[in-house]
Amino acid sequence: MSVTLREVAERAGVSRSAVSRTFTEGASVSEKTRRKVEAAAAELGYSPNALASSLTTGRTKMIGLISNNFHNPVFLQVFDLFTRGLQNRGLRPLLVNLTDETDPEGSVRMLQQYSVDGVIVASSTLPVTFARAFRDAGMPVVHSFGRPAASPNVHVVGIDNVACGRLAIQALIERGYSRIAFLGGPESATSTQDRLSGFLSEMAKQSDVEASFSFASAYAFEAGRVEMTRLLAEGPPAEAYFCGDDVLSIGALSAVQSHGLRVPEDIGLMGLNDMEMAGWQNINLTTIRQPIGEIIEASIDLIAAMLVDPGQEPKARLFPCALVERGTLRPVSD
Amino acid sequence: MSVTLREVAERAGVSRSAVSRTFTEGASVSEKTRRKVEAAAAELGYSPNALASSLTTGRTKMIGLISNNFHNPVFLQVFDLFTRGLQNRGLRPLLVNLTDETDPEGSVRMLQQYSVDGVIVASSTLPVTFARAFRDAGMPVVHSFGRPAASPNVHVVGIDNVACGRLAIQALIERGYSRIAFLGGPESATSTQDRLSGFLSEMAKQSDVEASFSFASAYAFEAGRVEMTRLLAEGPPAEAYFCGDDVLSIGALSAVQSHGLRVPEDIGLMGLNDMEMAGWQNINLTTIRQPIGEIIEASIDLIAAMLVDPGQEPKARLFPCALVERGTLRPVSD
Repeated sequence: MSVTLREVAERAGVSRSAVSRTFTEGASVSEKTRRKVEAAAAELGYSPNALASSLTTGRTKMIGLISNNFHNPVFLQVFDLFTRGLQNRGLRPLLVNLTDETDPEGSVRMLQQYSVDGVIVASSTLPVTFARAFRDAGMPVVHSFGRPAASPNVHVVGIDNVACGRLAIQALIERGYSRIAFLGGPESATSTQDRLSGFLSEMAKQSDVEASFSFASAYAFEAGRVEMTRLLAEGPPAEAYFCGDDVLSIGALSAVQSHGLRVPEDIGLMGLNDMEMAGWQNINLTTIRQPIGEIIEASIDLIAAMLVDPGQEPKARLFPCALVERGTLRPVSD
Repeated sequence: MSVTLREVAERAGVSRSAVSRTFTEGASVSEKTRRKVEAAAAELGYSPNALASSLTTGRTKMIGLISNNFHNPVFLQVFDLFTRGLQNRGLRPLLVNLTDETDPEGSVRMLQQYSVDGVIVASSTLPVTFARAFRDAGMPVVHSFGRPAASPNVHVVGIDNVACGRLAIQALIERGYSRIAFLGGPESATSTQDRLSGFLSEMAKQSDVEASFSFASAYAFEAGRVEMTRLLAEGPPAEAYFCGDDVLSIGALSAVQSHGLRVPEDIGLMGLNDMEMAGWQNINLTTIRQPIGEIIEASIDLIAAMLVDPGQEPKARLFPCALVERGTLRPVSD
């Protein structure tokens, strides 16, 4: 049953050291040799035991993948891409649910107990104190969908949320809307704060446009529905709403339809993310596309690089966003 | 920085052995002692290192949580409940994405490399050969949402899909539908086969009812939309469709609406799962509720018990399903 490293080396026609390096995270081995070794290992059914190998390397190859929102369908896509991407690198995603967690110290203890080699915080709402606490405890950290800064404390991969706020208002004005509003995510989230800031700064350049804003309690359907229902009860609604994200937009859409109004004829809606569901024909949401796949790929590249060289200066890597035109805003006016 | 087991024992006023047992999976310790130890450990910032402790126990406390469908929103709920439930037991969910995997042997090697203590297969579509291969490799396995059998090869927790098929047809007949159809999930999935079998066996008891069936390529929105679009193009549709699950129903709903027909006035639709989204007001799907929370809780109980006593006879644990009445079927006729 137990195949040795030597047998794999013989079958592959390479040195034992080459086999060892193939199965050592971060070790150098040519693509050609790696393929030979992997083919031989597969033929012989050789599997280097992670527990045994982590003793010699001090590495577990486990990456804590942290989320705190399981009510937003975009995370299904996020988990899919992260798990595939990490698996392809020989890394192992330990899914950590911090939905009820408010204490960074508790989370640090949990991740330490998990013996992870690194942490990916996949959240735009978890306070930055979490990522910092992981870093302070000596763990390599990448904050995906986090807030960029000129000199960030940890690696950040995401989008320029301020620019997205500006892009949203430009898109609404191009489509002839003059009474517009921001229906944001939770006020405490940096993503909400930055999208609002871009929205308001762009507004300040416009005359003849009225803008207002309010916040939903979470990036979740029900939160969007409740907030839009409140807005409709309060008085005459805006002509169009830039919603904090896609799932909030779908909640708002539901509230507008329940109120007997039509989208986009009576009220325009736009989201942010372009999650899979935004393209479903019965939702057909006009939205700002966040390049989720590229953000995740870059995050995995960064964490893999930090496993080899943890001393890298933290930096922010940002990807551009773009409008995806579908059916919830009226067309561009001439 | 490093707090010792002795310091925790002193602070808690218990023996060193009691501290050790508190942090050893499956070891006996009174609830009172456990609470004292945990409080002392939290105060002192003591965290038993998993890697070190797994050397003495031979256990990693890691559970491979296997999924192969990240396009069905129900899995967001499934991941949420599994990660919380496992975390609460001190177990660690290693998320394994087998979307592109067709070879049980490859998956066994992967799970062996991961050094997991046990495996939860959370899928109604992954062939039973996978769960069996994990068992044959000596891993404790629970198949959640799997197919029950009189003498199952592995522990199965789920629902009686045959009974669900019967329940569906009864609900449709009670509502006065006489031309009804099953729009199933993938034909190769045991859940699809069993739901169809119940559907047809109940049909056989009915006179004056016409039934037909077809299959979608996956439990996914797009698959439901494509199959319903095909059915509508083919000729006069059935009066009502029992869809393989909720996300298929939502795809079918989108196709029906795109075709200019109304639900439930022109065509009735019902799903299965009662995922969160089924209750969204702009979906409002009549569906059969699968008790997801109870299935997951029972699955975690079983895998935890197997970590202590792996020799248990495999059994099937089934939970009852019930109709959830919403807006996609017409009301019960008098």
